[in-house]
Amino acid sequence: MAPPTLAWTGDAATGHLVLLDQTRLPLDVTQCVCRQLEDVVEAIQSLRVRGAPAIGVAAAYGVVIGLQTARDASRREFDERLEEVRSILAASRPTAVNLVWALTRLAQTARDHPELPAPDVHDRLLLEAAAIMDEDRQTCEDIGRHGAALLANRTGVLTHCNAGGLATAGSGTALAVLFAAADLGAELRVYVDETRPLLQGARLTTWELTRYGIPNTLICDSMAAWAMQQGRVEAVITGADRIAANGDVANKIGTYSLAVLAREHDVPFFVAAPQSTFDLSIESGDEIPIEERDGAEITHGFGRQTAPDGVDTWNPAFDVTPARLITALVTEHGVIQPVSTARIAQVLCLDGGRR
Amino acid sequence: MAPPTLAWTGDAATGHLVLLDQTRLPLDVTQCVCRQLEDVVEAIQSLRVRGAPAIGVAAAYGVVIGLQTARDASRREFDERLEEVRSILAASRPTAVNLVWALTRLAQTARDHPELPAPDVHDRLLLEAAAIMDEDRQTCEDIGRHGAALLANRTGVLTHCNAGGLATAGSGTALAVLFAAADLGAELRVYVDETRPLLQGARLTTWELTRYGIPNTLICDSMAAWAMQQGRVEAVITGADRIAANGDVANKIGTYSLAVLAREHDVPFFVAAPQSTFDLSIESGDEIPIEERDGAEITHGFGRQTAPDGVDTWNPAFDVTPARLITALVTEHGVIQPVSTARIAQVLCLDGGRR
Repeated sequence: MAPPTLAWTGDAATGHLVLLDQTRLPLDVTQCVCRQLEDVVEAIQSLRVRGAPAIGVAAAYGVVIGLQTARDASRREFDERLEEVRSILAASRPTAVNLVWALTRLAQTARDHPELPAPDVHDRLLLEAAAIMDEDRQTCEDIGRHGAALLANRTGVLTHCNAGGLATAGSGTALAVLFAAADLGAELRVYVDETRPLLQGARLTTWELTRYGIPNTLICDSMAAWAMQQGRVEAVITGADRIAANGDVANKIGTYSLAVLAREHDVPFFVAAPQSTFDLSIESGDEIPIEERDGAEITHGFGRQTAPDGVDTWNPAFDVTPARLITALVTEHGVIQPVSTARIAQVLCLDGGRR
Repeated sequence: MAPPTLAWTGDAATGHLVLLDQTRLPLDVTQCVCRQLEDVVEAIQSLRVRGAPAIGVAAAYGVVIGLQTARDASRREFDERLEEVRSILAASRPTAVNLVWALTRLAQTARDHPELPAPDVHDRLLLEAAAIMDEDRQTCEDIGRHGAALLANRTGVLTHCNAGGLATAGSGTALAVLFAAADLGAELRVYVDETRPLLQGARLTTWELTRYGIPNTLICDSMAAWAMQQGRVEAVITGADRIAANGDVANKIGTYSLAVLAREHDVPFFVAAPQSTFDLSIESGDEIPIEERDGAEITHGFGRQTAPDGVDTWNPAFDVTPARLITALVTEHGVIQPVSTARIAQVLCLDGGRR
């Protein structure tokens, strides 16, 4: 039994966040303790915790940790520190919108209670962070339930990066759909893109699928097209880091490639993500900032240098898949198909639930 | 100044083959000496020497080495050993046809001289191996010359794997075209796919391009589509391991993916290869055997294990790109465009040269 992706220990005043260190998986199952704001920022930036929903939860707890030094301050100083903490965390990674969503939600909690002194607001923020985590667990279940039907009568399913329990506080997004389909009896064979440069597919997704008992086959990213051409892939499903109002999806670099290839091979392309990944403030994917990371991730990936000294690199961590290439979006509120601004607004906003 | 990709030292009776060990590049520039047939087979199988034309040259010298023990035998025994050596080398790697082509050419040399005693035939085989190497050098030059015009007025060019001097006895196939274009003044920026699992792009192609003074940028294979979408790529050029009569191309895994992506983005897709890479005995790429290699190349690629113990893998070393996705083939006899059975036959067979 591996430890959970994220766990909070203690009260708001002195508690801390414990993360499963995902940079060490699958060979080392170790935890990483965050007691300072800087620890949380470092864990997010170095991908000890990654995956859009998990980053959101980590950031929420990061706010609580960052405010521990202001707990005994005046309410005004507490609120100033809250803004400071929020902007530090917001800058830690630019693409996944769940991070900003979680920070906004905690800031709103504080604003909703102008009458409370700092320690009481601080306690409320911890409750709100815990609520975000709890809701994420339920969201994963709901995504799985809604998406499972899309995989009925399919065997070969390809996924990219890791959109599993390690990317969320629950069972995942894309992987939640696979887990739910398997629970319903689907005989899956999941092709797992290794997902260079950081190998989240090789290191994390194969690990999760095998633990769940789902047969899986690891391939290099460059093999996905050939797997499709050979008839091995009947569906592709990925997670997302930010989804624009029109359904354009920012996700791990290589996702766009898969979507083009899936279309060429008449393979449906599904994206599973919670409402918190939607950024309805932007019309299209053109407005999504794409994080570029250190080239050493490419040249010095796994224990040794694999390119000449000083080689130039380009290392975008994400790409944007246009809505036209996406067969359906799977959310906790249901399946969005076809993918359009109107249908997204309808499924996410018009059913009366809290959004 | 690095040592050559391949070099023969000595006479037929006692000479040996010296290879630049490509598994150690770019950090270690070391040579590997082949004195026994088994050394040559091992070097080919473990990719110390790789690239279709270079494998052909190595196999030709492998025949000479394999016959050193039969040099003083009767001619009948020599010929029997020749067949044995030929089948051992032919089985070393299945996809690149240059290997079989070179072996057939040496066998034909022996058959052309039934009157000669074993030592004299052996000497002739060394001359023929040297001729194959010399011709390959000229072939590379000619490929570069014919292909350079295709890159006129283009800057961003993407290549995959290594089709350079390290893949041939000369300046390369795809890279020969880039070198020739640069010599003519093209201001190139070459995007180099790292080419998982064995990273020939990261390790070898960046090294060659930088030595030639051509600006290059290393990317992961999964980034190629996004580079195209971002307008960074104006042409793709690769080498080939076997080309069927209809123009279908077997090449390093990931090539098919690039061809689909290039078509999607209206980017021309070029393949550069010598006549010896064409297998006119097969009508289409469906008949090309695709080598599958050990999954450890994926799971233990970078000096440490990067996937869980016992994970299932699929590791095809090549894929087949259909002719319809290829804008032009570049050969030493000229550019084949459009790519069709008739046009291939015309350019390769009807100009009266020795083929």
